[in-house]
Amino acid sequence: MRDVFIVGVGQTPVSKETEVRGRHRAAAAVKTALAAAGLEPARVGALYVGNMMSGLLANQQQLGGLIADYAGLAGIEALTVEAACASGGAAARVGYLAVAGGAHDVVVVCGLERMTHVDRDTVTRALATAADQELEGAGGESFLSLNAQLMRAYMEKYRVRAEDFAPFAVTAHRNAVTNPNALLRKQIDVDGYLASRVVSDPLRLLDASPICDGSAALVLASADVAATLPNAPRVRVDASAAATAPLALSRRSDPLKLEAVEASTERALVQARIQRRDLDLFELHDAYTIMSILTLESGGFAKPGTAARLAAEGRIDLDGDLPIATFGGLKARGHPVGATGCYQLAEAYLQLAAAGGANQVRDAELALVQNIGGTGATVVSHVLRRVA
Amino acid sequence: MRDVFIVGVGQTPVSKETEVRGRHRAAAAVKTALAAAGLEPARVGALYVGNMMSGLLANQQQLGGLIADYAGLAGIEALTVEAACASGGAAARVGYLAVAGGAHDVVVVCGLERMTHVDRDTVTRALATAADQELEGAGGESFLSLNAQLMRAYMEKYRVRAEDFAPFAVTAHRNAVTNPNALLRKQIDVDGYLASRVVSDPLRLLDASPICDGSAALVLASADVAATLPNAPRVRVDASAAATAPLALSRRSDPLKLEAVEASTERALVQARIQRRDLDLFELHDAYTIMSILTLESGGFAKPGTAARLAAEGRIDLDGDLPIATFGGLKARGHPVGATGCYQLAEAYLQLAAAGGANQVRDAELALVQNIGGTGATVVSHVLRRVA
Repeated sequence: MRDVFIVGVGQTPVSKETEVRGRHRAAAAVKTALAAAGLEPARVGALYVGNMMSGLLANQQQLGGLIADYAGLAGIEALTVEAACASGGAAARVGYLAVAGGAHDVVVVCGLERMTHVDRDTVTRALATAADQELEGAGGESFLSLNAQLMRAYMEKYRVRAEDFAPFAVTAHRNAVTNPNALLRKQIDVDGYLASRVVSDPLRLLDASPICDGSAALVLASADVAATLPNAPRVRVDASAAATAPLALSRRSDPLKLEAVEASTERALVQARIQRRDLDLFELHDAYTIMSILTLESGGFAKPGTAARLAAEGRIDLDGDLPIATFGGLKARGHPVGATGCYQLAEAYLQLAAAGGANQVRDAELALVQNIGGTGATVVSHVLRRVA
Repeated sequence: MRDVFIVGVGQTPVSKETEVRGRHRAAAAVKTALAAAGLEPARVGALYVGNMMSGLLANQQQLGGLIADYAGLAGIEALTVEAACASGGAAARVGYLAVAGGAHDVVVVCGLERMTHVDRDTVTRALATAADQELEGAGGESFLSLNAQLMRAYMEKYRVRAEDFAPFAVTAHRNAVTNPNALLRKQIDVDGYLASRVVSDPLRLLDASPICDGSAALVLASADVAATLPNAPRVRVDASAAATAPLALSRRSDPLKLEAVEASTERALVQARIQRRDLDLFELHDAYTIMSILTLESGGFAKPGTAARLAAEGRIDLDGDLPIATFGGLKARGHPVGATGCYQLAEAYLQLAAAGGANQVRDAELALVQNIGGTGATVVSHVLRRVA
């Protein structure tokens, strides 16, 4: 397989702009990414769109062709990739396959979600389609209730207290303050976390990522094309790996072990030929604080029951040894579902390109980026490396 | 890129079985395909699912992980590909990229749609999400009305009569009679066609493919793996090409010219290094008779205004020089939307494997398979070749 580079990214600010149609937002992200790469639309071979809920919330499917048209790429190969909240990462996976395999020299990956133009109940029901409808959704489970289940089980098993979850939210919010594309640019503290409303016991509002709109895009290119872009930072995709687990928690042997996180992380590290300690940052999928914890433990970054300590000790901060959510994460940058995986990759790219501004992780060279669908059912991991 | 072979296919009979859940139907198709290939589940690297409407009609997304679990492939890479009615072909395109590029040696592609458990209006609205919601869907256009528009414009421009469309439906029904997986195994004639109800003037019920349920699967493998399967017919994928056009008819310069059909066909022929006359059959996307006609003309198989003659002269019959819909096509095998592209590929495979039974096209060696989303907005073409 050929080397694949990210040669440009485009982010629209995550927001709650109910009147902005998805096609226009996505087209803006694609155009920004192409301009950043310095590539004309005519150079693009394909567009892969990550989206989960446009059919359900906007009566619009076939986003591939639609966005290609509105982004000035009419005629090219285009399709939509869906893997619930991992749709953006899964679209990047397909983009990687197309460039690494030699089918295209340049592709654009665009994640998009629009959620704020409908009421909260409608969004909640739409999000629940990521769960097993027979075993979970039809019984009234939502992603709040499923994550609350996991959080409760974790707290009971490891005797962990509510305040132990707080540092994940606090860190994310701190990093969002200086990210112009973040939705929640507001510092919080542990007291604020503890005072926040319990929305599904024991899960608090500040354990959860917000409902929002967003689109982010990446331009992937072969080494040959990347070499013609002298001003582009050299950020290579050293691994692209996906894994799945049964959707329903009841079909897993141990719901507190995210087996797809374990498998996807392991595959990515092997592909990139690195160890966990080599990583300079980890853009993980902090849709809920419990997801951060289970990810760190299932991914082998902390022993079961101990991940909260990483946060308490500041090791996940920008100057820690494993920074996470460096631009605010899903928690505070926001989690526009199908777009999230592309925001994560765009942010990791900025870190490796030394373009992180106030959020820069010092000397960042190697990043793991992980996008999760459902309660760990689909996990897509990418390793990015800055090369000379 | 590496050679890619289809080494096994699985079809469930297209039907209207309202109580069969999609996951079980899809799992059956996947298992049948793997058994036909003689490959254990452990050999499979990824599952790519083609589906359009499961979120809208069954509140179930993230089908990749779900079907992987139920098909005995829990843990593997899996995701869903959507391109409206071209979802199955688009999933096959992703499967091709994964094997041709070297990411996986064996992948399964599974198309699935379940439509008959909800009422007709709900299905009609769900199908309309493939159209441009702003410019078409919100104005009340459906795929019946959009295809009726195209049919009316075509009839006026070329002075074509209703009965000129009939042979496409008649041929499809004739071929379906001997296909055990077809939904409409019933011969019709021109009089029956003309007597059928006008559902959206000038479009008759017998111009349109039926609402139905179905799932079909393909096993794709590298040449190395295919060589270890001595009993498998040698059917190679010699081209895989996709193209798009604006979704809305109003955004196209000439709605009667399907530019994405033209581009996708041309790319596929170039990739496969063949001429149109080399083809032994063409599984085209006959969702409506007008789509067959516009496909044959935009794809360069007939001059504008003349495609009906191919049908009238019997050239599209099993013993003609360009057989289409050889197992009944979308019209009579049925059009379970996201599954259709996989049925088409499975049928072309059977033809090239000389396993077509009563539907066999004599000495079939080279097939073009084309799956279309919307009114020609996404077009995915594959060329299959029987090799020694």
